[in-house]
Amino acid sequence: MTGTAPPSASAPRRRGRGRPSRAEADSGPGARQRILEAARAEFAARGYDKTSVRGIAKAAEVDAALVHHYFGTKDEVFEAAVEMTLEPVQLVPAVIGGGASLDGVGERMARFFLGIWENPATRAQILALFRSAVTHEAAAKVLRSFVLRRVLERVAADLDVPDAHFRAELAASHMVGIAVLRYVIKVEPLASAEPEEIITMVAPTLQRYLTDPG
Amino acid sequence: MTGTAPPSASAPRRRGRGRPSRAEADSGPGARQRILEAARAEFAARGYDKTSVRGIAKAAEVDAALVHHYFGTKDEVFEAAVEMTLEPVQLVPAVIGGGASLDGVGERMARFFLGIWENPATRAQILALFRSAVTHEAAAKVLRSFVLRRVLERVAADLDVPDAHFRAELAASHMVGIAVLRYVIKVEPLASAEPEEIITMVAPTLQRYLTDPG
Repeated sequence: MTGTAPPSASAPRRRGRGRPSRAEADSGPGARQRILEAARAEFAARGYDKTSVRGIAKAAEVDAALVHHYFGTKDEVFEAAVEMTLEPVQLVPAVIGGGASLDGVGERMARFFLGIWENPATRAQILALFRSAVTHEAAAKVLRSFVLRRVLERVAADLDVPDAHFRAELAASHMVGIAVLRYVIKVEPLASAEPEEIITMVAPTLQRYLTDPG
Repeated sequence: MTGTAPPSASAPRRRGRGRPSRAEADSGPGARQRILEAARAEFAARGYDKTSVRGIAKAAEVDAALVHHYFGTKDEVFEAAVEMTLEPVQLVPAVIGGGASLDGVGERMARFFLGIWENPATRAQILALFRSAVTHEAAAKVLRSFVLRRVLERVAADLDVPDAHFRAELAASHMVGIAVLRYVIKVEPLASAEPEEIITMVAPTLQRYLTDPG
């Protein structure tokens, strides 16, 4: 998650001799990453509805055609921005253990999710994404597909319980609900609780969902 | 939660002899309820940000001054609309039992919350409120205060565990997270699960939070 600033903000506007052509600058190795960063910033600042491919292109200082070339439609750009924002969440299967012992998996999962949210930069990006998904069905659809394919299906594959997808989602729902009350609505006492207090209480719940076949 | 339609949609525009004066029509017994219904509809349709006291007054066919008279500021109108929308949630303390046995309280609470969400009319109103709270801090503040004073404090008073507020909120967070994934983002398999499947899995979790001092 290193921030990649535009290599030179004024480059595409220079029109002198001996400088890279617009096409070259656009298709340079940094262009795709620059578009992606711009997309995430635009979606976060304006919300899903008010963000356009044209606006993203302008922010990234490239032609709109290049955005389409790399990513496709607005929904596909959004999907790429979601994947970038939720990159940490994609590590969940590794946290679960992937075939290793599931002892303590509830605590590892609770600690991992709270860690993502406790990082202010990550939190701001995920909150922006959450606001888009809650207010726009097209954004919800992208998030839905991501959560199912990139998180639940992978986690479920490592579990040894019936209805593993359902149980993985129940565990996830608890962490989502805690995030909503703690970081979005900010209801006390959860809003000010120490992460360790939350982890201690929640870990046995997640452990039961993920490992107890009863 | 009976819907009260304006008694006569055209009344305030009539200017003939022998009809009620504008002031009389405005301050009739139905006016307060009519304003409240209009407020809820406006907040639901436009979101917190784009709703104004003037717009609510227009929809209720009263003077804006009457809205201020009954409710005060925009935030106070919003608060009244929240209380109306979350009227069913205020029954939670009764569901908990109020001094009666806490046996089975986890199941009762899970069943009660899912019941509220499974009612399409209630769901639509709560979703609209949730969208406002997630996107506007002023709306979040009203919801935050409501959840704390009207739900958590009352539930906690009936529990016999340490950190009763915290535990009541953890239980609530689980039901909030389930609602977000099931009804808002609509992630499978939770989105299509039978309510009874969810209640069976979740009840022991809520029971532990609300009653197990360990």
